[in-house]
Amino acid sequence: MSGDIHPVVGLRLGTARAGIKYPDRRDLVLMEVAPNSDCAAVFTRNAFCAAPVIVAREHLAAARVRYLLVNTGNANAGTGEDGLLDARASCQAVAELMGCQAREVLPFSTGVIGEPLPLKRLVDGLPRAFAQLRPDGWEEAAFGILTTDTRPKLVSRRVALSAGTVTVTGMAKGSGMIRPDMATMLAFLATDARVEGGLLQPILASAVEESFNAITVDGDTSTNDACILLATGQGEVSLSDEDDPDYQAFADLVLEVCQALAWAIVRDGEGATKFITVQVEGGQDREECRQVAFTVAHSPLVKTAFFASDPNWGRILAAVGRAKVADLDLTAVAIHLDEVPIVRDGGRDPAYTEEQGQRVMQREEITVSIDLGRGEATAQVWTCDLSYDYVRINADYRT
Amino acid sequence: MSGDIHPVVGLRLGTARAGIKYPDRRDLVLMEVAPNSDCAAVFTRNAFCAAPVIVAREHLAAARVRYLLVNTGNANAGTGEDGLLDARASCQAVAELMGCQAREVLPFSTGVIGEPLPLKRLVDGLPRAFAQLRPDGWEEAAFGILTTDTRPKLVSRRVALSAGTVTVTGMAKGSGMIRPDMATMLAFLATDARVEGGLLQPILASAVEESFNAITVDGDTSTNDACILLATGQGEVSLSDEDDPDYQAFADLVLEVCQALAWAIVRDGEGATKFITVQVEGGQDREECRQVAFTVAHSPLVKTAFFASDPNWGRILAAVGRAKVADLDLTAVAIHLDEVPIVRDGGRDPAYTEEQGQRVMQREEITVSIDLGRGEATAQVWTCDLSYDYVRINADYRT
Repeated sequence: MSGDIHPVVGLRLGTARAGIKYPDRRDLVLMEVAPNSDCAAVFTRNAFCAAPVIVAREHLAAARVRYLLVNTGNANAGTGEDGLLDARASCQAVAELMGCQAREVLPFSTGVIGEPLPLKRLVDGLPRAFAQLRPDGWEEAAFGILTTDTRPKLVSRRVALSAGTVTVTGMAKGSGMIRPDMATMLAFLATDARVEGGLLQPILASAVEESFNAITVDGDTSTNDACILLATGQGEVSLSDEDDPDYQAFADLVLEVCQALAWAIVRDGEGATKFITVQVEGGQDREECRQVAFTVAHSPLVKTAFFASDPNWGRILAAVGRAKVADLDLTAVAIHLDEVPIVRDGGRDPAYTEEQGQRVMQREEITVSIDLGRGEATAQVWTCDLSYDYVRINADYRT
Repeated sequence: MSGDIHPVVGLRLGTARAGIKYPDRRDLVLMEVAPNSDCAAVFTRNAFCAAPVIVAREHLAAARVRYLLVNTGNANAGTGEDGLLDARASCQAVAELMGCQAREVLPFSTGVIGEPLPLKRLVDGLPRAFAQLRPDGWEEAAFGILTTDTRPKLVSRRVALSAGTVTVTGMAKGSGMIRPDMATMLAFLATDARVEGGLLQPILASAVEESFNAITVDGDTSTNDACILLATGQGEVSLSDEDDPDYQAFADLVLEVCQALAWAIVRDGEGATKFITVQVEGGQDREECRQVAFTVAHSPLVKTAFFASDPNWGRILAAVGRAKVADLDLTAVAIHLDEVPIVRDGGRDPAYTEEQGQRVMQREEITVSIDLGRGEATAQVWTCDLSYDYVRINADYRT
């Protein structure tokens, strides 16, 4: 949680305990958005994508969204043709209950891969979720979308733009990129702004690139990942093109909420004890900066060094060296851990002392700054350390 | 060890305890190869490469090799200009002792990154290593090149080709791709065959591609990796071109020794409890097969599932799905664990039972067979599981 949670006019949320996997657990979330709302969406790039992702994409292309239906406990992934039928049937059940078209409903599932969706329990739970629908249902919904996360992730911002006040509120779930079989990352954001035409999708896509697509816990990408931004248009702010004086401020606000949710996922990463920012600058282009940042952030050796609070600069430099940046001159690379210089001229910085390194590594939040010394581009990614608990959590599944 | 170790005529090995890092540990290995021997070499692709790698490349380009000098305990990496001077000085010291040119000496170092090479102790140890030189010094040398490996890796084959008997003997060290700061993989092979002109290098390069470059413990690539193949030409077999009837048999023999050494590295992988072969077939080309195989072999979730003996087919399929193979149809993919079918038509194989999965996952050696169902290409990689001990070993460094 992060401060007050502001409802979004035009959006109501309800939850129910449907017994999808566990009894007496909030595992069904229904979101209702006002007619004529806009919706932007970013889905997993995994070729092995879940049935609800396929159906959600179809429905988004066919109609405006009225309802989002989320179940946890079952991913409806690796379920073949039957899984698709179940996802469609769940939308149809919402449509019949609410009096809308099935294509106005988007389905989302997260949980165990490869088990049939318990459709009857899900459908039986719908009227209870419907009865709970209310604008301030965010907190219960944020609990309702969790699987093995240790805490809810909910972020809300209300700011004054030139045209008036705007609200962006969002929730997310995710702990590893894939939890054991808990197929993972889901994020739902809503705003009361009116965002016309094709503006909403690039705003979300750009924000996702710098937030959910810039974090890594274990480098795995889920079959069910989705991020949705609803714009109800029922507030004071209305954006019709990129030249609108409020456009950039609104885009920045969406980015801010996405980043805060993404960081919450990293902090809740499986076994995480530290929050690591990898900041790369001085690259020739953003892509090579991201390549270096992710290579460092994915390295099991770098991550175990952070877990051990070991200022092991050789591992970081070796990860930079194997990041496949063409013609990289390692002697031009400079690396800092927070304020402490650790690498210069291809080796340990002469100003470095072991005491400084030990001091900074004791912190719970550490920034690795890598200057490639060959250009002006930058990139940032966020990750956590690799601990015994990561192995325990992922090895203990079903045992 | 793997059966009898056959000396290679024209090669002598000697070791010494030079006290590079620890007292009373065999940490200096000297190899002497007969005049006019040929040498092929493959080095790390890491842009952050160690001083001895730079010097070895220079010397290889300038002269025929007479001596290889290996020290453990110090990688002479991240040591800047001083490291280069030290690497050159160590070659010069060998040259003065043996009466050859410094450029006829190749230096190799493995151990801690970023510490100055203790040149005096190394040079002081040289006469003792020299005094030990003998053709059957392989076993002591195989111990002498180890750092944190738990056992020596030594493989020898002697076979009859049409022209006569040929011997290929090799040793390797390596445990993680980078050990804590123990910069890693070194392999030295020798044969008594005469291999003329440019034939030796492609034979080694091809063998390395299917052995040392097809294994992964943690996906990290070291600053010091090197693989050397010496051909003394003092045996019965002589190859002058690719049409020689013995050419393919000899190349296969080199591959066999490289693979046996590579597998020994995986088996000795940090914290490894299982040996996993990832076999991909049915790809459009070899590159996409390797891409899929490495994505599966690198996945921390797949690796922890093997550690837990959990037949978690969803993790394997999800890794295949994110391997960035263009237009991959997941419903055409079939996956087996050894003889047990686990995935078909995008989901769990209908023939699969949990009992079968549990049974196969209990084994210490498991083959994951992935049929992409879209072509004729294949690739194989080898890896191990991810256990608590991996984290312990890599986190406990210096503590």
